[in-house]
Amino acid sequence: MKSDKLTFGILGGDKRNYYLAKALKNDGYEVKLCGFEKLSNMSCEVASALDSDVLVLPIIPFEKGKEVKSPYAEKTVDLSGYEDKLKGKKVFTGKREKFLSEFSGMEKETLSYSDREEFSVKNAVPTAEGAIEKAINSSDFTINGSKSLVCGYGRIGKVLSEMLRGMGSEVTVSARKSSDLAWIKLNSFQGVKTGYFSELEKFDLIFNTVPAMIFDEEKLKRIKSGALIIDLASSPGGVDFEKAKELGIKTIHALSLPGKVAPKSAGEIIESTILSILKEDDG
Amino acid sequence: MKSDKLTFGILGGDKRNYYLAKALKNDGYEVKLCGFEKLSNMSCEVASALDSDVLVLPIIPFEKGKEVKSPYAEKTVDLSGYEDKLKGKKVFTGKREKFLSEFSGMEKETLSYSDREEFSVKNAVPTAEGAIEKAINSSDFTINGSKSLVCGYGRIGKVLSEMLRGMGSEVTVSARKSSDLAWIKLNSFQGVKTGYFSELEKFDLIFNTVPAMIFDEEKLKRIKSGALIIDLASSPGGVDFEKAKELGIKTIHALSLPGKVAPKSAGEIIESTILSILKEDDG
Amino acid sequence: MKSDKLTFGILGGDKRNYYLAKALKNDGYEVKLCGFEKLSNMSCEVASALDSDVLVLPIIPFEKGKEVKSPYAEKTVDLSGYEDKLKGKKVFTGKREKFLSEFSGMEKETLSYSDREEFSVKNAVPTAEGAIEKAINSSDFTINGSKSLVCGYGRIGKVLSEMLRGMGSEVTVSARKSSDLAWIKLNSFQGVKTGYFSELEKFDLIFNTVPAMIFDEEKLKRIKSGALIIDLASSPGGVDFEKAKELGIKTIHALSLPGKVAPKSAGEIIESTILSILKEDDG
Amino acid sequence: MKSDKLTFGILGGDKRNYYLAKALKNDGYEVKLCGFEKLSNMSCEVASALDSDVLVLPIIPFEKGKEVKSPYAEKTVDLSGYEDKLKGKKVFTGKREKFLSEFSGMEKETLSYSDREEFSVKNAVPTAEGAIEKAINSSDFTINGSKSLVCGYGRIGKVLSEMLRGMGSEVTVSARKSSDLAWIKLNSFQGVKTGYFSELEKFDLIFNTVPAMIFDEEKLKRIKSGALIIDLASSPGGVDFEKAKELGIKTIHALSLPGKVAPKSAGEIIESTILSILKEDDG
Repeated sequence: MKSDKLTFGILGGDKRNYYLAKALKNDGYEVKLCGFEKLSNMSCEVASALDSDVLVLPIIPFEKGKEVKSPYAEKTVDLSGYEDKLKGKKVFTGKREKFLSEFSGMEKETLSYSDREEFSVKNAVPTAEGAIEKAINSSDFTINGSKSLVCGYGRIGKVLSEMLRGMGSEVTVSARKSSDLAWIKLNSFQGVKTGYFSELEKFDLIFNTVPAMIFDEEKLKRIKSGALIIDLASSPGGVDFEKAKELGIKTIHALSLPGKVAPKSAGEIIESTILSILKEDDG
Repeated sequence: MKSDKLTFGILGGDKRNYYLAKALKNDGYEVKLCGFEKLSNMSCEVASALDSDVLVLPIIPFEKGKEVKSPYAEKTVDLSGYEDKLKGKKVFTGKREKFLSEFSGMEKETLSYSDREEFSVKNAVPTAEGAIEKAINSSDFTINGSKSLVCGYGRIGKVLSEMLRGMGSEVTVSARKSSDLAWIKLNSFQGVKTGYFSELEKFDLIFNTVPAMIFDEEKLKRIKSGALIIDLASSPGGVDFEKAKELGIKTIHALSLPGKVAPKSAGEIIESTILSILKEDDG
Repeated sequence: MKSDKLTFGILGGDKRNYYLAKALKNDGYEVKLCGFEKLSNMSCEVASALDSDVLVLPIIPFEKGKEVKSPYAEKTVDLSGYEDKLKGKKVFTGKREKFLSEFSGMEKETLSYSDREEFSVKNAVPTAEGAIEKAINSSDFTINGSKSLVCGYGRIGKVLSEMLRGMGSEVTVSARKSSDLAWIKLNSFQGVKTGYFSELEKFDLIFNTVPAMIFDEEKLKRIKSGALIIDLASSPGGVDFEKAKELGIKTIHALSLPGKVAPKSAGEIIESTILSILKEDDG
Repeated sequence: MKSDKLTFGILGGDKRNYYLAKALKNDGYEVKLCGFEKLSNMSCEVASALDSDVLVLPIIPFEKGKEVKSPYAEKTVDLSGYEDKLKGKKVFTGKREKFLSEFSGMEKETLSYSDREEFSVKNAVPTAEGAIEKAINSSDFTINGSKSLVCGYGRIGKVLSEMLRGMGSEVTVSARKSSDLAWIKLNSFQGVKTGYFSELEKFDLIFNTVPAMIFDEEKLKRIKSGALIIDLASSPGGVDFEKAKELGIKTIHALSLPGKVAPKSAGEIIESTILSILKEDDG
């Protein structure tokens, strides 16, 4: 089966899957898009979409049972009863184990695009842009001329700290590993060991990317009045939000930014990841 | 009259004047803030505010007659009847001639802070950030990896093009003067003569800062589907908005961004401009 | 006379004029190059070169009398006796008045390319790169991680400060005008008023672009041991070099960098400037 | 043994070890520096230096036998006969196995500072600066406005590509891994797969960091006339230098740059690496 002759069935999901379908079409693939009646004139029945070689579901495949979350659908996208049709297809989703809990025995055919390094690296971009947008939107001051702290120098931390500098903020980055701290310094940022924030009171903007409780009561108490904390770490995040509220500190827990601020880019990232996986598989 | 002993009366306006008052207080000045009952516990009567040495009105001083636009006031801020109290004060506003049309004979005492080079340069920052925010918010794609065009290399064009590059866009800048084009190239942007856009079809994001009709029907027809035009030039702007709508091109005419996206920074810019003017005057 | 049919005679000079000749040839012009026997197989007699429409001499046209400085010539390039042949030609040089002191009465035909804004802007680039090279070469430390001071925010100061930041230095820029200081801050540099250097002792690298005595004894005494001063201002420069030597401070007075570090780029800058002038003239 | 009470004996080496000694002294350690009579007034006998807790030799410990390469020494620094004194000391060098081939049985006491991640990361900076300096120095054109290719996106490639962009070059970076290529794109560089250079003819500057034959005859033939190749990969490098010479292509094989362009920084990198190792050991 040559990858450039594959047909794709996209089943439900948000605008990312809509743009995924468009991107695949633009690249010459045959695509059936199911569950987007409100958005698109590409429309089809579930049964017909399942006739494709490759099936793509949202990151979280099901809302309840075998029903796919489809905010742009007029009819429910439900896979119940189609167990046989799925056999032998390649099925892409994000949370593979959630799919398998409904369709046991399909371990071999089920693939995750969101586990892939390439996917995470590329999604750091829309995440960082979403964070920048929140910082402009939800503060009373400009990023330019502000002092900002980025906690964590993983993928998002790396992209975000460069963008903040590009906007004219004076950026401090925190990390735990000494080799990360060497890179931080060499990339001309101020570096500080995560948790050991000697100058916490100076920051106007604080971004957290570390999935651990970093900003507890003790730290929150040292934060400057008027500062904004944007937490990008997945739930429960790295900030004691209740305590922050009590102390009058403005916080935003910003999740799932790629689909929100750049669904087209996010859809194209899914496309390139899926095509990479298929190509290797093909190889 | 030594400038560090001056007292200030701030009369009406939006959040910028609120933050102007805070900034002046932080710098040790005595301030009376009038017309912000909904926002602040600094509150006072018009008559009392007028007892100050320096009076500050919004950029556009009056809404109708001698009434100051005061969205955060509970009582109207009206200067009618106070003609005598104003004599001999220094009065700051933006549109000086609008103030003088109500208060003739005060030419000597009335000063504009918005005519000042320093004010315009500094306001380019919140304007550019507002434009970045719109670009993230109102497009389906990321700035990073996009191709963008900035028309005009004045204050806003200079700041905006650097920020777009800092976000990872591939930036082309247009200007008319050959020395501006030399600077554009030397600052490592693609340069093009304004109006002579040979590759208009390649841009995802188009920002206009030139107050002249640049994007007419002929040009709009060459713009890529899905592209976003953000016009920052004061009304009527540089885009044929009706034609764009007909052609299905998304446009945003973004005006007065500083007060919207960064009222605190904008208030501090007003403060530093006013203090500069007073200092020179004092000298 | 259409500019694209012009013939050029290049008479003497250093490698810049050699590359000027190459650039003109590449652009399709007929060129006679005189005084470069040691470098080139394009070679010709003075008399023959003077038969061209446009004549180009070095920035400083004569070494002594009417003899052109020609380090790559085997025979002297001497214009004595050719007064009549020069009449009616366009003659380009840098120091126009030096040419006219030998050839009086040619005011109309004699043009300076180095007086031109475009020429100065573009030459800021090779000057700044030469300064960077000296800083790498003549110091014991890396630019990355250093603290540097750039005095003056004119053309060279603007280009140099960006390059230093691009290399990873923490850059402070000095200027006198408050609008320049606003730009410095907004471009995310530390700004300081020229002469009022409160933290002179912190800098590892000091670059001067201001043609006035800035670094006198009092200032030199405050400079950190091991620091390097690179003076880019034309003679006598802005540093008390003798006093610096006494104090054991390393200084470099770096002049005429474009011709030294990037003669090809410098020659192309001369070409584009001359062609711009001819085009306008033609216009 | 508390690390802050340690005494250090530095034996031979180039300026890096001289600056290492100065840095340790500045940090309050007792240091004996041996083999630098021509440079320093810190001077001592080999036997006395060996009385220290920690001994530091150059990266390549011996020139011949047990003699340490010491370009700044007046007397030979020879460790022959001191086998017993070395026992129980901590000995730092770069090439540990070369030291052990002369002093067998000292495996436990002998440590390499150059094997350490932190050391390599930090040394990427002086290496990249040395490459920039060569590019300015050995080409006829400016980096600003040039098109450059950086082969390899390891430590040196990362630092160098940022610096080249900071100087105003249009930078393409090559890598083999797809996740590296994702990072390259996201950092706003042009990306290309190493070896698959579709546009080799466009580059003015080519930097190689990959220790494998990349620029063979076929590739060299496609390189633009006047371009400069700077090879930073350790011997034998990644360029067919003989073939390049035949083809008239200018090449530079630039090795050991840190010690040459920034011995002070290089010495401080050795210091911080050694202190990190001792601290962990101590821990």
